[in-house]
Parts: sequence; C-alpha cells; structure tokens
Amino acid sequence: MEILITNDDGIYAEGIYALACALKKVGNVTVVAPDTQRSAVGHAITITDPLRVVQAKRSGKFFGYATSGTPADCVKLGIKAIMKRQPDLVVSGINLGGNIGYNILYSGTVSGATEGALLGIPSIAISLDTFVNPDFSAAAAYAVKLASGMKKRRLPPGTLLNVNLPNIPAAKLKGVRVTNQSKTAFNDWFDKRTDPHGQTYYWMTGDFKPEDKDLASDLNAVHAGYISVTPIQFDLTDYKFIPGLENWKL
Amino acid sequence: MEILITNDDGIYAEGIYALACALKKVGNVTVVAPDTQRSAVGHAITITDPLRVVQAKRSGKFFGYATSGTPADCVKLGIKAIMKRQPDLVVSGINLGGNIGYNILYSGTVSGATEGALLGIPSIAISLDTFVNPDFSAAAAYAVKLASGMKKRRLPPGTLLNVNLPNIPAAKLKGVRVTNQSKTAFNDWFDKRTDPHGQTYYWMTGDFKPEDKDLASDLNAVHAGYISVTPIQFDLTDYKFIPGLENWKL
Repeated sequence: MEILITNDDGIYAEGIYALACALKKVGNVTVVAPDTQRSAVGHAITITDPLRVVQAKRSGKFFGYATSGTPADCVKLGIKAIMKRQPDLVVSGINLGGNIGYNILYSGTVSGATEGALLGIPSIAISLDTFVNPDFSAAAAYAVKLASGMKKRRLPPGTLLNVNLPNIPAAKLKGVRVTNQSKTAFNDWFDKRTDPHGQTYYWMTGDFKPEDKDLASDLNAVHAGYISVTPIQFDLTDYKFIPGLENWKL
Repeated sequence: MEILITNDDGIYAEGIYALACALKKVGNVTVVAPDTQRSAVGHAITITDPLRVVQAKRSGKFFGYATSGTPADCVKLGIKAIMKRQPDLVVSGINLGGNIGYNILYSGTVSGATEGALLGIPSIAISLDTFVNPDFSAAAAYAVKLASGMKKRRLPPGTLLNVNLPNIPAAKLKGVRVTNQSKTAFNDWFDKRTDPHGQTYYWMTGDFKPEDKDLASDLNAVHAGYISVTPIQFDLTDYKFIPGLENWKL
C-alpha cells in the first residue's frame, strides 16, 4: 500500500511525525507537507507563484518533502510530481485541534484529504481535538486500524473520511461513532487594538464553547469521548432547494 | 437595503467596481475587500496575524475598505467590525473567471459569500467566465435584478447562490438556468523548471477544456450562453453513505 501523508501544521509538527511513523506498519509512506504552519488556509492552492520542494530530515534521517505550498498543493505535488506511482491512500494530519462542524471549511488538514479525493484517491483527514498537551498515540493507532481496513473497503467516489479524536488515552475512548458535520455556529469577533506606532489593527478571536442538540454530530461524539468519523463530499449543490429556486423569477 | 460587497481579485479590480456602482441602485453599499489579489485562497481565514484596514479611493472618491485579509476575513470584518448594522445581503464578485464545478472549492469569491451565509446573511457569489476582454455590464445588471428580488424572497438558512455568466453582451444571453455544480474534473499538472540559480521549482498548470455530459451543470449552462444560478450549501456530510459506513467495522 502506497500512502501519501500531508498536514497543515507543517512537516516539523509532532502530529505528522506520529502519523508517519505509525503508518509505516501499513505501507510505504511518502510525506509531502508544508515547510511551515498553514493552518486555516482552507482549500487554497498556489497558482500565481512557483512552488519549491526540499528534502526534510527528522531525527537525523530523511523524513519527507517540505514544500512552499498549501496542503492541497502538497497533495497535488505528491501525486503529480513526486511519487513514482499513484498512492492507494492519502492521510492528512494528525492535526493539532479538532476539525469539527463548520471549521472544516477553514481547515487546511481537511482540504489536503479533499484534494486527494478530488484526484480519485481514498482519503482521510485525522485531527486531535486539543491545542494543549496533545497525546497523538491513540489517533496514530486508530489511523493504522483505519488505513489497514481501507485495503478491503471502498469509499464511494468523491467521499472522504473526516476523523476526530478527543485528547484522552486510548483506554478511555468509548468507541467510534459515524457522525454528521455539526451545524453549530461559533461565536467569533475582532479585538480592535492599537500597535506601537499608533495604528489600528484587528485580531480575530472567539468564544469556542459551542453546544449542539444534534447527538449525531461530530462535536457531540468527540465531547462525549468517542472517535468521530464523518463521511464528507464536495458537491456543494443544495439539491433540495433546486425546485424552490426554479419558482423564483430569475 | 444594506449590502456588503467583497471579492477575491482585490479592491482595485474592475469587477468589484462595476458591481458596487450597479448595486448602489438597490441599497447602501459597503465595500470591504482584499487590498491585493487573493485568488484561489479557498475559505482561508487569518488567525495568527493581525488584520489591517485602510480606506481606499477610486476615481478620486472614497470607495471602500481595503484589508490585509482574505475574502472570508473581509466579510467577517465588514459584519463584525466595520458596518454599523448587519447587512441584508452579501455579494462577492464580480470575479474575473468562472467559479464553476470543483473550482468553487478553491474560490475566494465563493468563500466570501459562504462566510456571509455562515453568519446568517443572504449571500450571492457572481463570476464572469473569462480571463480576457471582460465585459462586466451584463453581470452587474443581473446582480441588480437578483439583489432587488432578494428583498421579497428568502433563501433557506445555510444556502447561498453561486452565479456565473458567459462573457457575452446582455442581448445575446439565452436566459437563466438553475444548475448543479459540475462534477467534471480538471486536468492539472506541474511544470518542472530550473530557476536562474540552478534550483528546481514547480508551477501548476492545466488543460482546462472540460466536457460534461450533465446538461443541468453550471458548466454546460454557461458554455451554452445561459446565466447559471446554483444553490450551494456547506454541510459537507455525505448522508447517503452514513448507513454504509456504519457497516464498516470502525
């Protein structure tokens, strides 16, 4: 099994190291990841600039290819310019921070996996729902289980898996839930500040304590101690509203 | 009617100027747009850096607020930091280049409108399907018609409109079609080159001559000379596959 790994926290992040080391048990691993953090880049790609690729070492050994691009660029580069044959699986992560609900729209990690699915490769995004004291071991072990299972199973074309884990030891995980994307909105706003030169600037911040009544959501599964697995796709058409819209005098 | 306008081609682009001038017939217009081009940024937002906002003039008069952020940042800033009251409508565009099929995943223009919808505001993205010799007049006139109509009509919560026009004079347009997002894949690859210092770089390019058998797609509507209006939403869950995935031993 040929596995392409990327992330949005950058090639020197702990999460991608834990993931790559673990997935070596399942297949040949090629890491192509941004040279620095590219969080919240959404599904950005680089068109107007050239992309650079350099070999990156970790623990004194060749680890993978560091690029000047986004996670979506990395997956394109990996598949179309770096790997000798098409990967059987793209895994993006392990992200520091959950990719849950509407946050997946902003997520570079999810967009890396989405790009894999767009290119016809089975793809998984995997994230750990914490920003402090991450323990990636349970997520890495679950990535191994899921990747092994993908040898026998087929995702529908155009569908990928968005996996989130709570930051608790493997022994305390309550199980796995198939979920849907939470529709809970986050409450964000801007801090208006003055810089040392007297100029105004704005910094986005927010109050991230969402509550969701939908027990089947990714948010509730992770908050209840489960691994959340959401099948996602990228046909954004609102088919339900097409008949309604046809009645508008457009 | 309070209207917030953004784009991804930047506040000095021709398309946003045509749009803002036209929509002044419908309501009070506030322009908040990136200070330079931000194409293909996807749904990126700026978290780790501060955002700057300056007043921008066009034709010698105040035109709008130029920001250091992405289109999604601009919509957040417009609604949460700049406008005195919530807009009734967000319009993003007029984009130079169609936002059709899977390209909408990469589109900063669409993400500006998506951000509006996420914040509960009726939202429209509007794009002109050309990169050369654009004539924005038909698109601007259609934006006026659509925005006027939105005074009486309600989009479902979480649904926005993705509008694309062919680059032909208004008199030659064949009409309006409600469409779905094309599933046609674009064929892109990387040019591998050597810079003047002997270093390798990669530049993404592609062969954008897609054909689509789906007559109801945005792609075919625009290629046939129609205005394409696609209702889109941002719950990416693949609900159809949930029962199937529940049978996997996750």
